[in-house]
Amino acid sequence: MLINEVKALVFDVFGTVVDWRMSIAREGKELAKRKGITGVDWLEFADAWRSGYGPSMNKVRTGELPWTRIDDLHRMILDELLAKYGIEGLTEDEKRDFNKAWHRLDGWPDSPPGLIRLKKRYVIATLSNGNVALLTNMAKWAGLPWDCILSAEIARHYKPDPETYLMAADILGLEPSEVMMTAAHKGDLKAAQAQGLRTAFVPRPLEHGPRREIDTSPEDWIDVVATDFEDLALKMGT
Amino acid sequence: MLINEVKALVFDVFGTVVDWRMSIAREGKELAKRKGITGVDWLEFADAWRSGYGPSMNKVRTGELPWTRIDDLHRMILDELLAKYGIEGLTEDEKRDFNKAWHRLDGWPDSPPGLIRLKKRYVIATLSNGNVALLTNMAKWAGLPWDCILSAEIARHYKPDPETYLMAADILGLEPSEVMMTAAHKGDLKAAQAQGLRTAFVPRPLEHGPRREIDTSPEDWIDVVATDFEDLALKMGT
Repeated sequence: MLINEVKALVFDVFGTVVDWRMSIAREGKELAKRKGITGVDWLEFADAWRSGYGPSMNKVRTGELPWTRIDDLHRMILDELLAKYGIEGLTEDEKRDFNKAWHRLDGWPDSPPGLIRLKKRYVIATLSNGNVALLTNMAKWAGLPWDCILSAEIARHYKPDPETYLMAADILGLEPSEVMMTAAHKGDLKAAQAQGLRTAFVPRPLEHGPRREIDTSPEDWIDVVATDFEDLALKMGT
Repeated sequence: MLINEVKALVFDVFGTVVDWRMSIAREGKELAKRKGITGVDWLEFADAWRSGYGPSMNKVRTGELPWTRIDDLHRMILDELLAKYGIEGLTEDEKRDFNKAWHRLDGWPDSPPGLIRLKKRYVIATLSNGNVALLTNMAKWAGLPWDCILSAEIARHYKPDPETYLMAADILGLEPSEVMMTAAHKGDLKAAQAQGLRTAFVPRPLEHGPRREIDTSPEDWIDVVATDFEDLALKMGT
């Protein structure tokens, strides 16, 4: 049975475990208040920051950029957005701190309690494109009780490169089939499954806000579909 | 002030956080009972297993062996010791499980409560020659609340190679001077300090049993000397 074979669950983080959109918008609003910045739609700003992320990573994946951690990719995108939105008067320290908003993302409400349950039976680890420092700081901020922080940074390959998934199983001392990739995004699961990992789909309908349609439909090829992490914990026997 | 500059404490594990000697002897005795093995002094066996560890790692450090994780080095030493002690009749599964005794080491009594206190203010991470899976499993076994599992395995260099210490600061996104190496062994601290890390010395007089003399004397060049992790937590303002 699946729950007897799986030894570890590894998690996509941005969108799956934490609500980056509302968290970044919150940080933007706080910064705007402190600095007297007006006229910025911070939800739109968050969306724009996030949408620069895939293309930046692809530059690394294709070799156009050398290995660059997410903190630095986030900063490159931020600098472009500050110019685009005409946001001026931030000191270098303030920019650096705002960039670290990605270290202070809040979990979905079910994330901490669901992870606490899953941790009793399984090794639970991140498997994110976020860098190790970002994921470590975020875990403290959001109360995410990871057993281990795994990151694309360790493999020096961004998901969905095969190396990232294979690194996770290898470094945990497990067979790929003993590791379950958990994500809100089917592309991540598909790529994990191609390397022999099990898959759990936890759609997050509000990841991109209430107005964007998200694919939340179950699929035959996915091992477990859950409505949230508490439901996942239940379905995984914890 | 030191406690305002330090952001993360990284820990040597074998001997510093956990009592490998009594834990391995306990596992040996349990195995002996199950398999009817007699006439083995399991404390001596534990000492012999541990003393094979430095020379094996040095083979990796000097390039005589390619990168090999501790689990595999432990197994090579175990196979030699089983032959030397004339221990026969173990299946491959039993040998593999006994080798994993190193994943099931008990913390010194002050380790979990001291770490829980330190974690409130600092990032706390392993910085051990043990591999990631070993350290992750041990944390669950012994209740060690690490924020992050860092290992020589990530740097592919064993301590005291400089690369291991520099990797820890780099991957945590910190300056070396913001990271404090905590160890029961002065050689580890000396090597960390040479790379710019801060140092905390927590001698463990019983690491090698009551009969072996251990250097527990303070040194001027060490930043903090503590009697145990509760004392360290106090001295670090937590």
